[in-house]
Amino acid sequence: MIKVGIIGSTGYAGQELVRILLQHKEAQIIWYGSRSYSDKKYYEVYQNMFQLVDDHCMEEDMETLASQADLIFTATPQGYCASIMKEEILSNTKIIDLSADYRLKDIDVYEKWYGINHASPQFLKEAVYGLPELNRESIKNARLIANPGCYPTCSILSIYPLLKEGIIDPDSIIIDAKSGTSGAGRGAKVSNLYCEVNENIKAYGVASHRHTPEIEEQLSSVAGQVVQLSFTPHLVPMNRGILITAYALLKHEISYEEVRQIYDSYYRKEFFVRVLDKGICPETRWVEGSNYVDINFVLDPRTKRIVILGAMDNLVKGAAGQAVQNMNIMFGLEETEGLKLVPIFP
Amino acid sequence: MIKVGIIGSTGYAGQELVRILLQHKEAQIIWYGSRSYSDKKYYEVYQNMFQLVDDHCMEEDMETLASQADLIFTATPQGYCASIMKEEILSNTKIIDLSADYRLKDIDVYEKWYGINHASPQFLKEAVYGLPELNRESIKNARLIANPGCYPTCSILSIYPLLKEGIIDPDSIIIDAKSGTSGAGRGAKVSNLYCEVNENIKAYGVASHRHTPEIEEQLSSVAGQVVQLSFTPHLVPMNRGILITAYALLKHEISYEEVRQIYDSYYRKEFFVRVLDKGICPETRWVEGSNYVDINFVLDPRTKRIVILGAMDNLVKGAAGQAVQNMNIMFGLEETEGLKLVPIFP
Amino acid sequence: MIKVGIIGSTGYAGQELVRILLQHKEAQIIWYGSRSYSDKKYYEVYQNMFQLVDDHCMEEDMETLASQADLIFTATPQGYCASIMKEEILSNTKIIDLSADYRLKDIDVYEKWYGINHASPQFLKEAVYGLPELNRESIKNARLIANPGCYPTCSILSIYPLLKEGIIDPDSIIIDAKSGTSGAGRGAKVSNLYCEVNENIKAYGVASHRHTPEIEEQLSSVAGQVVQLSFTPHLVPMNRGILITAYALLKHEISYEEVRQIYDSYYRKEFFVRVLDKGICPETRWVEGSNYVDINFVLDPRTKRIVILGAMDNLVKGAAGQAVQNMNIMFGLEETEGLKLVPIFP
Amino acid sequence: MIKVGIIGSTGYAGQELVRILLQHKEAQIIWYGSRSYSDKKYYEVYQNMFQLVDDHCMEEDMETLASQADLIFTATPQGYCASIMKEEILSNTKIIDLSADYRLKDIDVYEKWYGINHASPQFLKEAVYGLPELNRESIKNARLIANPGCYPTCSILSIYPLLKEGIIDPDSIIIDAKSGTSGAGRGAKVSNLYCEVNENIKAYGVASHRHTPEIEEQLSSVAGQVVQLSFTPHLVPMNRGILITAYALLKHEISYEEVRQIYDSYYRKEFFVRVLDKGICPETRWVEGSNYVDINFVLDPRTKRIVILGAMDNLVKGAAGQAVQNMNIMFGLEETEGLKLVPIFP
Repeated sequence: MIKVGIIGSTGYAGQELVRILLQHKEAQIIWYGSRSYSDKKYYEVYQNMFQLVDDHCMEEDMETLASQADLIFTATPQGYCASIMKEEILSNTKIIDLSADYRLKDIDVYEKWYGINHASPQFLKEAVYGLPELNRESIKNARLIANPGCYPTCSILSIYPLLKEGIIDPDSIIIDAKSGTSGAGRGAKVSNLYCEVNENIKAYGVASHRHTPEIEEQLSSVAGQVVQLSFTPHLVPMNRGILITAYALLKHEISYEEVRQIYDSYYRKEFFVRVLDKGICPETRWVEGSNYVDINFVLDPRTKRIVILGAMDNLVKGAAGQAVQNMNIMFGLEETEGLKLVPIFP
Repeated sequence: MIKVGIIGSTGYAGQELVRILLQHKEAQIIWYGSRSYSDKKYYEVYQNMFQLVDDHCMEEDMETLASQADLIFTATPQGYCASIMKEEILSNTKIIDLSADYRLKDIDVYEKWYGINHASPQFLKEAVYGLPELNRESIKNARLIANPGCYPTCSILSIYPLLKEGIIDPDSIIIDAKSGTSGAGRGAKVSNLYCEVNENIKAYGVASHRHTPEIEEQLSSVAGQVVQLSFTPHLVPMNRGILITAYALLKHEISYEEVRQIYDSYYRKEFFVRVLDKGICPETRWVEGSNYVDINFVLDPRTKRIVILGAMDNLVKGAAGQAVQNMNIMFGLEETEGLKLVPIFP
Repeated sequence: MIKVGIIGSTGYAGQELVRILLQHKEAQIIWYGSRSYSDKKYYEVYQNMFQLVDDHCMEEDMETLASQADLIFTATPQGYCASIMKEEILSNTKIIDLSADYRLKDIDVYEKWYGINHASPQFLKEAVYGLPELNRESIKNARLIANPGCYPTCSILSIYPLLKEGIIDPDSIIIDAKSGTSGAGRGAKVSNLYCEVNENIKAYGVASHRHTPEIEEQLSSVAGQVVQLSFTPHLVPMNRGILITAYALLKHEISYEEVRQIYDSYYRKEFFVRVLDKGICPETRWVEGSNYVDINFVLDPRTKRIVILGAMDNLVKGAAGQAVQNMNIMFGLEETEGLKLVPIFP
Repeated sequence: MIKVGIIGSTGYAGQELVRILLQHKEAQIIWYGSRSYSDKKYYEVYQNMFQLVDDHCMEEDMETLASQADLIFTATPQGYCASIMKEEILSNTKIIDLSADYRLKDIDVYEKWYGINHASPQFLKEAVYGLPELNRESIKNARLIANPGCYPTCSILSIYPLLKEGIIDPDSIIIDAKSGTSGAGRGAKVSNLYCEVNENIKAYGVASHRHTPEIEEQLSSVAGQVVQLSFTPHLVPMNRGILITAYALLKHEISYEEVRQIYDSYYRKEFFVRVLDKGICPETRWVEGSNYVDINFVLDPRTKRIVILGAMDNLVKGAAGQAVQNMNIMFGLEETEGLKLVPIFP
């Protein structure tokens, strides 16, 4: 039984970790960390957990926790994980960080886009970008995983095979992304109130969203050249789900079958990536509650572009599910353990 | 492995059966019945099932199915199950009927409220009303289960202990119920279109809803006297969930602890009924996707009434989950097998 | 041109006042009061007002405002209006208070249910309860109007004719109410976040909601005897709208036509009360954005009860629209001026 | 008083015409056309109109109507208006067609994208594309107006000034559009049911949506060269609103002030186009119920692109409001008559 601690267990991603781990055969949560609710029973914060979790929320105490847990998930604000990281911790336990602290290898890019100093850049090199479909081997032996962002997971998985195979122009990529509101977190802000989000759609972080350099760094690495792209996230009145609609110029004419063949060869063996039948557009409702990413594409010979679509649950494959997938790999378990969640509809 | 057939597998309740049974260790679906989509792959109707279900939808053919299946779920319109029922079927297989055909023991009541003739009243006596918390023993050996309606399940479980213990006036019961829209089914009607349901709440079937006599029959049986009550359902702009708010006059003064004691004694051992802590109101979000019914009550000495609240997922405990619970009991399995679903939030 | 000031103009009710008054021919807003946003342009808080309102938000300064405005709307938290009220203000201007400070005539009831001391009880007697359909004459000459609560407006108008005509038992009234989320205000609270409200319905304030004594006081006055009732509000995932479902025992048998006749005689001349055709249930979608209250009823001879339904927009007839209706009456204008708003659907 | 007939008055656009025209001082609806509901009172189809409209729905009868009405709005399926058009009608009355029949000047393009034969191509040349901000002068004397599509209105108004001024590359335009569900009409289809649309976002008509050639034709005309672009619409779980997010390559470096200056010079005098303050993104909630289009842009020097955002109510400026704006121009009225609708929020 893997003993697991969660720092930040009362955010939406933290709670989703709890939901998934409660249904996982090989893991046991020993620490429900929460700065805000440390005096409360966990189920008082999330009544769905009544009679399922009887523990109290605990103040963070990384050193004690590191000595007790085989693995710690940090589902915390940017900067926190970097601020507490040290060799003593990593020599005692493993860390899967759901924040962005170790996602960007280039510290200048991190500090520019996030506007904070990185407190422990010495671990950047060691940290593995935890996207199993790309980095499965490195994840196996990692001590420190940078769990990918929600938008980057959906974007990279949808686009990277085409880039790697050289069929799209790396300078032409535009990603128009749409997310449910759980991605905005559980902080009490006017802009996230029901009446402000409901019956509305808006773009935000236009040309400045922090997931842009993360997507670019990964795609650049795949493409073997610098990729700069346009990324625009939008807030959608729904709880869960991310849809990305990506556009790129085709380098040369290509048939549906040829592109299909590329996707199939990359994803045939990937349990969590579903390349849909021809003509079926990914929709967020079909992946809700599950760890799947649904992908498809449309060729548009008129404009010489390809339109790539990807859909995923932002809290599962975009956060907690992927973190558990990484855990499974790190501990030599079946990669799908606890993650064969059938999407819930409607 | 129990071989299971589903007639009406492409309605919302049918699809929820599929979702639950795919995660059930002892059951295997061998027949995805669907009159409307018999030419299609099941996943073409519900894309969430892509790569999870590869079967085609099948025309109904009860006799063939009865010879192959250990159990048939009928998630069909009123009247269908009664119309095809005969001894030959019940001697070959077991039936859990999710429609109302065998719920009401009094055929006159059935025909009056449903406005159709009952085609096989000879099985009414044999059919067991499949509410495990009331009828667990009879379910064990039943061949034909009348799976309770969604509103009745939530209403009866919330109210019956108080009635049985004689602390409320049977003539004073009022149930004001609220349901998500999946309860209205997947039929293409203008009144169920997104723009008609969204940003709206309405009552329907006022003083005439068909679940009224079902609740009354069960509560009368518990009370040992005829119970007539007011029942008003409302349509709420959400996918899943039922909340009932029930009102009754207290026969005499009673303390919180005394009422609490009653609920505890009835439900302490019931896995799927959660009596919440004092002061916590049941909310549908905390049971979504799970088989739980959350119950609580508030005493109002000013008006000498008790207000009873119950929340549940209409597609799980209100339909498919309860059906699987019945199956588990009928086949001697752990009652919770496949049903330890952690509620999904948000 | 009536010069109008709004204290609390950046709450939802305050903003709705602005929307309505901008389309009113005889009123001009001269003061956009806001404690929270006093440094901002009004349209920066509500971008719908871009190019419609160019004013800055102003700190509250009742004395200056009272000397400039013919009328002040206070759309402020409980206790504020009572705390600043004095004769000097009322001798200079008129006040329509959208808070509860002057709604309850019995100061003990106020202090018990609201848990605060009343700072200016000397004005309670003078204050007129601003429900035009009941108190039109007193409103005409009032200096201080207690604008009714949203739930009380809908409840009282739906029920009072039956009580006044003596056809229902005053001890048997139960009001089960459902409200959209704008009724919870624009405060940044976790419980009002999109993901907490969406896909959920819950009761709150069971047997303890502050609108209970307000409804009781008004209905008692109508009935000529003390009325105590059960009132349970629910939060519905929609922006606007209130639906009340009320239950009462009929004192004696009565026909549809007789009840209909009562409603017609009370409301035939009331522009803003629409008694619907037989069999049509009020729904919140049909009144959105308008000042209408839609009412209907169903007789249930089985239970000897009547079910009364009322629907209304909580921000219009339940707050800002009713306030403007009161203003129109106080200033001798056409009562419907600025309020002939056609309900917007979908 | 302009006498107005509406063919297709019971669709969402038709009903929005009714809402707007009821608040219009110079127009009177004399004909509520509806093929589906010809036996019913209009308010029975739309209960918001109870006590506001007492007329019955009428079968279509273009010749009688043309002899009685000064103007006919056709809010009908594609092909209908073309099928009934003839000189006798246009010599008796004016037509504003809300369908696509006369929007595309190139009949081959129409027949290819719509897949139907055009029944009256002889009127294509005469028909004026009713986008007042582009074609105000031609609209004044038109007999037949092709009222623009919702997506085209929002797209063209957002983009065309930049194209006309030559600052963006016409081959680089990508429009990623998002629409509320009222745009899908009131037809009873499974795909538009509440439970199918709620908690979901999807793209549809990828690289094949019929509004593509309409946008291209208008932008080509503005640019003086053939424009081909990518257009992807998405369905958003909300009733009203369209947001477009457009991307284009800048031909050369340009400052915020220079682009701003272009937008200001085009729209300073346009009442219904609001160019927002720097840094404020258009959101659909701020225009709901109104005839405004809100526009803004972000320069992205990293990618040498400009991101252009436009938000609008699809039923108002995207359909009924624009139609009334055209009517006002055609009849020499104040262009804003009946259209100074303050956006309703929340």
